[in-house]
Amino acid sequence: MTVRLLPSDVVAESAPMVDVISAVEDAFDAYERGRVQMPAKSYVTLDQYEGDFRSMPAYIDAGDWDGAGIKWVNVHPRNPDKHDLPTVMGTMIYSDPETALPLAFLDGTSVTMKRTGAAAAVATDHLAVEDASTLGIVGAGIQSYTQVDAITEVRPIREIVVADPDDDRVDEFVDTYDEEFDVKRGSTSEAASADVLSTVTPVREPIVSLEDVGERTHINAMGADAEGKQELETDIPLESTLVIDDHAQTTHSGEINVPYSRGDLTDDDIYAELGEIVAGVKAGRETRDGITVFDSTGLAIQDVATAHVVYETAVENGDGTELDLLNLS
Amino acid sequence: MTVRLLPSDVVAESAPMVDVISAVEDAFDAYERGRVQMPAKSYVTLDQYEGDFRSMPAYIDAGDWDGAGIKWVNVHPRNPDKHDLPTVMGTMIYSDPETALPLAFLDGTSVTMKRTGAAAAVATDHLAVEDASTLGIVGAGIQSYTQVDAITEVRPIREIVVADPDDDRVDEFVDTYDEEFDVKRGSTSEAASADVLSTVTPVREPIVSLEDVGERTHINAMGADAEGKQELETDIPLESTLVIDDHAQTTHSGEINVPYSRGDLTDDDIYAELGEIVAGVKAGRETRDGITVFDSTGLAIQDVATAHVVYETAVENGDGTELDLLNLS
Repeated sequence: MTVRLLPSDVVAESAPMVDVISAVEDAFDAYERGRVQMPAKSYVTLDQYEGDFRSMPAYIDAGDWDGAGIKWVNVHPRNPDKHDLPTVMGTMIYSDPETALPLAFLDGTSVTMKRTGAAAAVATDHLAVEDASTLGIVGAGIQSYTQVDAITEVRPIREIVVADPDDDRVDEFVDTYDEEFDVKRGSTSEAASADVLSTVTPVREPIVSLEDVGERTHINAMGADAEGKQELETDIPLESTLVIDDHAQTTHSGEINVPYSRGDLTDDDIYAELGEIVAGVKAGRETRDGITVFDSTGLAIQDVATAHVVYETAVENGDGTELDLLNLS
Repeated sequence: MTVRLLPSDVVAESAPMVDVISAVEDAFDAYERGRVQMPAKSYVTLDQYEGDFRSMPAYIDAGDWDGAGIKWVNVHPRNPDKHDLPTVMGTMIYSDPETALPLAFLDGTSVTMKRTGAAAAVATDHLAVEDASTLGIVGAGIQSYTQVDAITEVRPIREIVVADPDDDRVDEFVDTYDEEFDVKRGSTSEAASADVLSTVTPVREPIVSLEDVGERTHINAMGADAEGKQELETDIPLESTLVIDDHAQTTHSGEINVPYSRGDLTDDDIYAELGEIVAGVKAGRETRDGITVFDSTGLAIQDVATAHVVYETAVENGDGTELDLLNLS
């Protein structure tokens, strides 16, 4: 009857990427099969602080396991300059669906990073060429690391090209990975010609054009998370096999939201939701050539799947501390 | 940069009822003035466990203070029999709206009890006769205690009549209060003739009829919290000055939901939302005689207001423990 407290460092240690990828894949499968509950995100908008909170509740019945939880996450763009705090933070409650007992209280920021990488890996596993050996990263911020950690679990990546105008970020990225991979700084165009490309930037104007992209590149478009954001020029998704995570979220705030709102990209241009491919309802990559795009906005079921892995791993290893929150006994 | 952990016992100690009543009144005032954000509750329904989770996010700008948070609460009616656990539990995250830093992680069950009592007290303060000296309680369960604790803060109650078919519950209730008040067991009719009546039951068929009610009784109808529940016969709200906490919630799942859905009670029968009275837009009790009814469903802003009091009090007293959740420094 205790709640396990799982701060950032414990979440990081308790989320083996291969397990998180598997659980997130389970979540997309369950989603397609109608075995999840995921109410729309609700927003608390704070104009006076130029920020907002989002609540993301979900339940997954993955067959072997089930889990419920909620992430309470914010976007406060003024935080870094004004308060020396991250723009985005998150906290999460993970609960037993059968009894509703709260099982864990987690740092949600580290959950978000892990589950975002894992979604890219699930998409890459179904959509990239089997022998993909090069990975391009556009945007060397905090989310780029779990892209590498996750994608290299599903493809035999040897070479990584990272593009970012910020020298310090690039140096830190290269230092992190140069023992394990052939990692070098390159232009956006060099990164975009790799077998797998992940774009992880907050830009509002596209920075990748169709001629940058390789003829069989799989692109994980991870950055766009709000109306008006777009990383890829519109002809890229139009010329590609386009896969999304969730129709409502991607058309509202994902990579395709701008062209979709203008009518330049329509439902006819969307090949599938990722869950359909994971569940085998639609095929993944079938030809060696051709560009594929995964438009990821991030779903509450990914958070619950990741929290499930973190909680089970932490319990097994005796990590985290326990709190008698309810004083029931 | 730490999160304060506030288990049930600390919440109970850190929520002086007079302060909670004041904060909850502030919340209703801010609600009327359009200075809150309160998205609709979202539900995660678990048919296989005959239960559900509800997420209740909110923000309040009360002028002197502001606060944001979310309560994650469940209703699992099989819990007592099957798991020896409460039907309803709750957990809550309380956050700084300016930076979104999580400030506290609280037991939500004790928050719910406090804020529910406080709402009844706010309504009683505006709607009961000034010299109310008798209080009737129908239903001596866990929520009845904060009704007494809160209402006796706003009116000079000397005598309490408690009605409940369960002898053990009544004995426990009487034992708790018999040093402080003239407290006795009575019939529903005896309880309902008091100056102030709180009904705190989970019944689905009305148990209080119009002839039971005193000619100037103020009724706090606290029990109905789901479609199909009703404690008062329909002619009571129809013959009363009827005040609700929130139109959407009360018509969907409050005391009036059954007659409202049948068309037996309409918007014309609703005098005001409590916020309108608190903010002075509409008058409270103006005549000595006449029945008043407050239909309370419980709002997320009440939870945030209560969490605000608990957090500030706990910090001042150094209560609760601190957790470095985010590992930012």
